[in-house]
Amino acid sequence: MNKSVFYHAGCPVCISAEQDLISLIGETNVAIVNIGEERSRISEAEELGVKSVPALVTPNGNILHINYGASIEEVKG
Amino acid sequence: MNKSVFYHAGCPVCISAEQDLISLIGETNVAIVNIGEERSRISEAEELGVKSVPALVTPNGNILHINYGASIEEVKG
Repeated sequence: MNKSVFYHAGCPVCISAEQDLISLIGETNVAIVNIGEERSRISEAEELGVKSVPALVTPNGNILHINYGASIEEVKG
Repeated sequence: MNKSVFYHAGCPVCISAEQDLISLIGETNVAIVNIGEERSRISEAEELGVKSVPALVTPNGNILHINYGASIEEVKG
């Protein structure tokens, strides 16, 4: 994994954090995944260790949970 | 404010997030402030809106609270 992956669920907190991270890291360095829409990727996020969104998974696999928006359980609904 | 400012308090969660952010954003783009050591800057962080550490204040003043380590109240002790 060379890019960071930003998982979010479309919440206002998520969108705000997404814009901040894109401007900090650079759009080409981060893949954006909306697990509210791409629900098949919820399990992928869980397996990586994402507990809540928005969260950034770094290229080395560390997870930065940012400004708590929603837990994965809430996204599952 | 052109640089981001990363406020932390020396906790293991803080140090881990610090290393991740430095590698993502670049060391020259972020100022690191340990409010556990530089206690006079606790009020500065509070005024910016930092509620817990580690937190990154972006150049436009947004705050990304990351992987909850400790509340500002806990840092005040």
